[in-house]
Amino acid sequence: MSTDPLSTTLHALADPTRRGILARLATGEATVGELAEPYDMSMAAISKHLKVLEKAGLVEQGREAQWRPRRLNPAPLRELDAWLGEYRKLWEARLDRLEHYLRHLQGRSDA
Amino acid sequence: MSTDPLSTTLHALADPTRRGILARLATGEATVGELAEPYDMSMAAISKHLKVLEKAGLVEQGREAQWRPRRLNPAPLRELDAWLGEYRKLWEARLDRLEHYLRHLQGRSDA
Repeated sequence: MSTDPLSTTLHALADPTRRGILARLATGEATVGELAEPYDMSMAAISKHLKVLEKAGLVEQGREAQWRPRRLNPAPLRELDAWLGEYRKLWEARLDRLEHYLRHLQGRSDA
Repeated sequence: MSTDPLSTTLHALADPTRRGILARLATGEATVGELAEPYDMSMAAISKHLKVLEKAGLVEQGREAQWRPRRLNPAPLRELDAWLGEYRKLWEARLDRLEHYLRHLQGRSDA
């Protein structure tokens, strides 16, 4: 597996359980037990998913007392957004062309 | 491996060679030979990467004659962008708070 930071981020996100954990953390900090609740999975399986997210820097561990809540770190998502930005103009240009073409068709049917 | 469409897209993007192929196709159609050129890899390895991109719907094959150029389909990237949009407000809010805090510090040093 590739280990450049963007590949690590994308690999971490390529799983619905891990995206579910991020969605939960987007609403606020949570303990491992709270994160595991919606899933019919062993705590070991959830911990493994969390490790992948932590390795990618998407999830951080708080230092508070024993229960060490996890929190979301959006920085790697911002990097992904910057990468995606290069392609945004591509699909926007395609949508513009499609809109232009539809207007052209409409103009002809109006005539 | 998970097979929901977004996981398939993210998995396909989690490799620098595959992202390189997409970047090349963002500039226009290309044959497999042209796509392979920058890489010190066998054609079999490049074809395997292309298959992953095609399975994710990120790359399409043209129907033109023998050489069947590949082209980029940005639709799965737009889906990823929509998913990422939910988190965009999160990091924007953090940047706003940081900016607010820096202004507050500056205000104090100006006084």
